[in-house]
Amino acid sequence: MIRLSVLYPATEGATFDHDYYRDKHVPLAVETWGVSRFEIDKGISGPYVAAVHLFFDSMEAMAEAMGVEGTGEIIADVANYTTITPVQQLAEIVA
Amino acid sequence: MIRLSVLYPATEGATFDHDYYRDKHVPLAVETWGVSRFEIDKGISGPYVAAVHLFFDSMEAMAEAMGVEGTGEIIADVANYTTITPVQQLAEIVA
Repeated sequence: MIRLSVLYPATEGATFDHDYYRDKHVPLAVETWGVSRFEIDKGISGPYVAAVHLFFDSMEAMAEAMGVEGTGEIIADVANYTTITPVQQLAEIVA
Repeated sequence: MIRLSVLYPATEGATFDHDYYRDKHVPLAVETWGVSRFEIDKGISGPYVAAVHLFFDSMEAMAEAMGVEGTGEIIADVANYTTITPVQQLAEIVA
């Protein structure tokens, strides 16, 4: 199983609309990419104010999911909820 | 639900024993703290070479779990698998 984490670093003066992220942005992404399992984090402490974890069966499945036309719309939607540039972490879940 | 992520930043010249981490260290931690759900990540790309995600019902449950005597032994065991100083991220899972 592959985890794609999109992490939003806490940034001085930045804004992040957690409601829009949970109710609009992530649903758009998971619907467009056909993601069957995901988790949304609201930061309490540590380097990130928010994150999403998307789970895929394999790297190939992830690449195929994100190759669709709607990916551009998802990226364009980021400006609607934050001024933070996210960081991507990709990992294999080993246990 | 609360997620505690322990993240190991990719560090020039550092070492990380993924087998020891999966087979010895994380099992010690989850047994000592009575963690019922966890996931271990092996980094593929991005800022971290490894991570563990521990899930707790509440902040109180997490504090209580980690207040046990064995926590010192867990911290001391870190030197057995890595030279990296981990970063902790705490978050509420909102979806």
